Amino acid sequence: MPTQAETVAILGVGLIGGSIGMALRARGVRVLGIGRDPKKLELAISCGAIDRGVSTDNLENDLASVQVAVVCTPVDRIASDAIALARAGRPDLMVTDAGSTKRALIEAIEADARGRETFVGAHPIAGSEQHGVAHSRVDLFEGRVCALTPTAHTHSERLARARSFWGSLGCRLIELDPVTHDQQLALTSHLPHALASALASLVPAPLLPLAAGAYRDGTRVAGADAALWASIFLENRNGLLDALTALRGRLDSLESAIHQANRQTIEEWWEVGRANRLAYITENSRNPVAL
Amino acid sequence: MPTQAETVAILGVGLIGGSIGMALRARGVRVLGIGRDPKKLELAISCGAIDRGVSTDNLENDLASVQVAVVCTPVDRIASDAIALARAGRPDLMVTDAGSTKRALIEAIEADARGRETFVGAHPIAGSEQHGVAHSRVDLFEGRVCALTPTAHTHSERLARARSFWGSLGCRLIELDPVTHDQQLALTSHLPHALASALASLVPAPLLPLAAGAYRDGTRVAGADAALWASIFLENRNGLLDALTALRGRLDSLESAIHQANRQTIEEWWEVGRANRLAYITENSRNPVAL
Repeated sequence: MPTQAETVAILGVGLIGGSIGMALRARGVRVLGIGRDPKKLELAISCGAIDRGVSTDNLENDLASVQVAVVCTPVDRIASDAIALARAGRPDLMVTDAGSTKRALIEAIEADARGRETFVGAHPIAGSEQHGVAHSRVDLFEGRVCALTPTAHTHSERLARARSFWGSLGCRLIELDPVTHDQQLALTSHLPHALASALASLVPAPLLPLAAGAYRDGTRVAGADAALWASIFLENRNGLLDALTALRGRLDSLESAIHQANRQTIEEWWEVGRANRLAYITENSRNPVAL
Repeated sequence: MPTQAETVAILGVGLIGGSIGMALRARGVRVLGIGRDPKKLELAISCGAIDRGVSTDNLENDLASVQVAVVCTPVDRIASDAIALARAGRPDLMVTDAGSTKRALIEAIEADARGRETFVGAHPIAGSEQHGVAHSRVDLFEGRVCALTPTAHTHSERLARARSFWGSLGCRLIELDPVTHDQQLALTSHLPHALASALASLVPAPLLPLAAGAYRDGTRVAGADAALWASIFLENRNGLLDALTALRGRLDSLESAIHQANRQTIEEWWEVGRANRLAYITENSRNPVAL
């Protein structure tokens, strides 16, 4: 008798949840989409992102066949959503997420005994300034880094399954603790987003004809969703505030060198960033990042 | 008897000078490359960017047939180069440039009677983080904005010829005074470059696997040349310092809202940049910018 196909539930079927669903379905996994809005679930089905949509109202029944649940809601909803799934699901359920921040939500989940038993934090580093299931892509995670953030409380069997789950989507796995994750992501993602928005805010419409490539690329992510980024900034407030302080330190150095008209110091200042950028190009030529 | 083909001299044959040369040659104009390094001039000939290379040592003879000279050297050399060309050239010579800053160099040129008589400041808004004639492109200026920055001292006949010259390369012309140009370019280009470099400097090698699209795009121009950007930062020190102050004001607002955990203020803060970015996408869909 053939074993029953694995079933994965995805809570929150937008760009990330939808892309996870597509990748799973392409691998023969059955995908249940969970959401509050039936129209969004219909759209997810028609996009090929999920097999079936279920309402958040009747989770116990629908989760009976589900071994893995992935929470893809905004970061400020992940903790309560993960705990609700953990409580409604089978004893052996593994719950993971795709949130861009980790420390605060994992603390909240691990304060709950059932949450602590089931959850493994994850952050697949892929995305886009676009959102919605219609922009999902079956290959969004192919070759991307996924950071797993187990803690001392993480259940080892769930951690093994989380590794297997994210690895099966084509991710390159790394592991780090939630605090380090948030500090590092503040520098590699949250600060770049804040700067993109700040930069865009300083260039009103009359100046746009003068905006060339540096503006275009430096502001691309400023087109992202305000509520999404307000949540990330608040969830990772310590990490982002530290990153902003570090940035101010760099700008202080530049301003001081400009005031002194010290060309050599300005060039040395520039070379620090240039060296990192060239290292990134080398790294990226081996392992390209997605949009 | 056919009229003699127009001859244009280009001083400094890198990415910008080389691309101007290619575009002129494609239009049947004879192009003289002027430089100190014979090897670079040889390369420019083999790339098809110039017809002939001449040394800076014997300018009077070589400029006898030249009606237009374009100074494409780094911004801190443009003033002295423009004056040298003006003095060595024919009485009717028109001198223009492609510098990313305008106020300081135009002040220096207009302090010289012959400089004032011949020069029309220009800034074609096109470029790349790459440099060198090998990256030149015949279509680099096609559809790009070129800002002309005439002053009260600009010779009206030279201004008319500068409009005709840059227009013939496919540029969309706008005109603004040098101070306004430098203030606006500080926001649309010089600040984005400074931020790209600052951002890159905060992400050392061990963090690069965590860097996704926002880092990649936000730091692209950090790979540019240190000496080039030190010169631009120093030439436009007032504009850049003002832009940095404006940026700090925006970051102050964000930090304050984060400290207060004021979600609504953060979302409103984000929406200002987002609205400008969406306006840019609309503008750019009509008139795409080049790298």
